[in-house]
Amino acid sequence: MIQRIDHVAIVVNEIESALRVYRDALGLPLEHMETISEQDVRIAFLPVGDSEIELLEPINPDSGVAKFLAKRGEGMHHICLEVEDIEATLRELEARGVELIDRVPRRGAHGRVAFVHPRGAHGVLIELLERA
Amino acid sequence: MIQRIDHVAIVVNEIESALRVYRDALGLPLEHMETISEQDVRIAFLPVGDSEIELLEPINPDSGVAKFLAKRGEGMHHICLEVEDIEATLRELEARGVELIDRVPRRGAHGRVAFVHPRGAHGVLIELLERA
Repeated sequence: MIQRIDHVAIVVNEIESALRVYRDALGLPLEHMETISEQDVRIAFLPVGDSEIELLEPINPDSGVAKFLAKRGEGMHHICLEVEDIEATLRELEARGVELIDRVPRRGAHGRVAFVHPRGAHGVLIELLERA
Repeated sequence: MIQRIDHVAIVVNEIESALRVYRDALGLPLEHMETISEQDVRIAFLPVGDSEIELLEPINPDSGVAKFLAKRGEGMHHICLEVEDIEATLRELEARGVELIDRVPRRGAHGRVAFVHPRGAHGVLIELLERA
């Protein structure tokens, strides 16, 4: 059902500063950077094994990511799990009473995605991704 | 230098309750559980792709993990990166001024480990592991 950890997202104040640790000191390759306007974030993608580390920098102080950063500080923001069949996973979670943010998948950059609420997953914001 | 995400550790109040989400609803296999007395934790290991999700339950209220849980609540606790040469990684981090918890590796269950301080890694507690 779950294929792998697609990525672990880390929210930071400023991507350039975080790259000095994750790229320059730890030696992870920077695959690319992009701005996703509809999510109000800049993202840097650093592949590691069959996963990625994603550095997220909010670009709008009213966004959810910016509010998370203001409240909790820099750190791990969410974990993305690649699933084979996102509808089946959501049905199973719902049947077991796990609180969801998205009951129906929506379109993401790499396929269809849905978020599980941290209240449903012991404090972890989980993104589910079925790759296109 | 970095091989892969070895594991992502999630601190929870009670492993059995968390297994209802991570094992039963998400379908991750439970590989095994163990108590590591010197770290005052019980751990459940759930493989996913070439990584693992580790559920950590503190068994002593005075431990670091218990204090983290009391202060921050349940959620992601640290990320473990497997490295080829832990001394070389620590030297590189130190040369670039990244704050470390362990300047010298110590023996862990699966090899030699060292922790990078969250202040050095933009809020993320990073465990480095060189497998034995």
